[in-house]
Amino acid sequence: MSLLDRVRHCMRRDMARFRPFLIDTTRVGWVADEIADLLRAFPATFSVTADAVRLAPGLDGFEARSDAVDTVLRQLHAQGALTGWRDETYAVAPSFHAPPLLRIERAAAPAFGILTHCIHVIGFCGDGQGMKLWIARRSLSKPVGPGKLDLLANGGQPMGMSLRDNLRKECWEEAGVPDDMADRARPASVVNYMFEGQRGLRNEINFVLDLELPQGFVPRNVDGEVEEFFLWPAAQARERLAESDDFLYDAALGLIDFLIRHGAVGPETPDYLPLIHGLRSRPRE
Amino acid sequence: MSLLDRVRHCMRRDMARFRPFLIDTTRVGWVADEIADLLRAFPATFSVTADAVRLAPGLDGFEARSDAVDTVLRQLHAQGALTGWRDETYAVAPSFHAPPLLRIERAAAPAFGILTHCIHVIGFCGDGQGMKLWIARRSLSKPVGPGKLDLLANGGQPMGMSLRDNLRKECWEEAGVPDDMADRARPASVVNYMFEGQRGLRNEINFVLDLELPQGFVPRNVDGEVEEFFLWPAAQARERLAESDDFLYDAALGLIDFLIRHGAVGPETPDYLPLIHGLRSRPRE
Repeated sequence: MSLLDRVRHCMRRDMARFRPFLIDTTRVGWVADEIADLLRAFPATFSVTADAVRLAPGLDGFEARSDAVDTVLRQLHAQGALTGWRDETYAVAPSFHAPPLLRIERAAAPAFGILTHCIHVIGFCGDGQGMKLWIARRSLSKPVGPGKLDLLANGGQPMGMSLRDNLRKECWEEAGVPDDMADRARPASVVNYMFEGQRGLRNEINFVLDLELPQGFVPRNVDGEVEEFFLWPAAQARERLAESDDFLYDAALGLIDFLIRHGAVGPETPDYLPLIHGLRSRPRE
Repeated sequence: MSLLDRVRHCMRRDMARFRPFLIDTTRVGWVADEIADLLRAFPATFSVTADAVRLAPGLDGFEARSDAVDTVLRQLHAQGALTGWRDETYAVAPSFHAPPLLRIERAAAPAFGILTHCIHVIGFCGDGQGMKLWIARRSLSKPVGPGKLDLLANGGQPMGMSLRDNLRKECWEEAGVPDDMADRARPASVVNYMFEGQRGLRNEINFVLDLELPQGFVPRNVDGEVEEFFLWPAAQARERLAESDDFLYDAALGLIDFLIRHGAVGPETPDYLPLIHGLRSRPRE
């Protein structure tokens, strides 16, 4: 196993199984064949053809689209075809700064392969050889990745919330980091992934932020979603990343990017360029 | 003008004008139509067809290939068809860690569109709002980009030299940075470009290194290739990058990447994601 295996895991997909999800002529996601078949039962909302899933003609405007889709999703949820309802919505748009075309329940994002956004907060102390990283172990009750190793804070970007407010929220809820300390986080990178998971296509852009924490500050979880925190030398995190899949898949990407940016993984590593290009290139689809 | 213009400048190319340069079945570069026509005059060395330029069959082994190509290049140089002879060789290989298949005069790299590598050394002092960057102005006698703004050190990666030795060499020659200080440089990122220039296709991977210089240290040029150095606040470098093309094209990329990694260009910038993906994705060809 190697660091590159962590990156390759997040690139695995067979796009032949997916067809574009279109709003008017704008592609905003990808729908797997089995989901497309389910959507055929709702022709007032979805137009399903062999080459695409489209919102039905006449569904114009953000609210009308969002209401119609929400009604379908609630039926699929009631039937057991859509699990893990979160009561949190994501914006559906072709890119981060584009105006949203639709609002969708978070649990349905992979089913429609929509582009989602997330913040990765890497908590660290010291630098150079003495640098240490704060690593979380996720609660055993989390629906995704229970017990997996994770970043100081790692959270989806909900619709209508600024990145800064989400940063403060996640830092507080996951690690008990007060706002003034969270505000010191520095946007530093972006990692991307697109892979086929159990619930569909995970197509995400992760904003990576570095947060240098004061010596002596110890994160404590507030919302019950983290089991415990560890403070590891960078080399220990690197070794665990390379030799196990103990980290949550996306946390692994943010952490590898951090290790690259801070010189803990350098050009002498044979996989250095494939790692960087795998982490940072947008998928071609 | 904007930072994204600097990145787009380095992506401009019309690949329909180029055909692959192959050694056996391995693609190692791209040759423009007008260069391919010149190479038809040397059928013992190059096999030129409508779809590719290949090394002639029977030219086996690194030394035999390199000698044959060198002989042709010296003739082209004597005819004036290849200018700027450097007497410095580059390795030709499909990727950085792959064994070289051929050794080629540096001045001919764009003509064959071979993948080249370079180090970008960003010299800085301080951090956060107080961070300042060392910026060079290139000598007016440089063949490429005379008088342009540049990084503390910026140099091609010659064949057979380690990245570390090249780092020491470039830091000393360009900025008078002694070896022990250069050794503190930290590999931090990689930026890529592929664009059509006057001499062919520039297809380069740049290893970006951050070098924090002590307060009070002032770079001084040793080899005559730098006119002067400036110490600029990060915001001043950002503004000049966005509002002019005063920086050497590739130096602009390394510097924008630095500003992104250090939070001086963040997700609130509308072009943030296109900038990152433009800088860091490998070209698709």
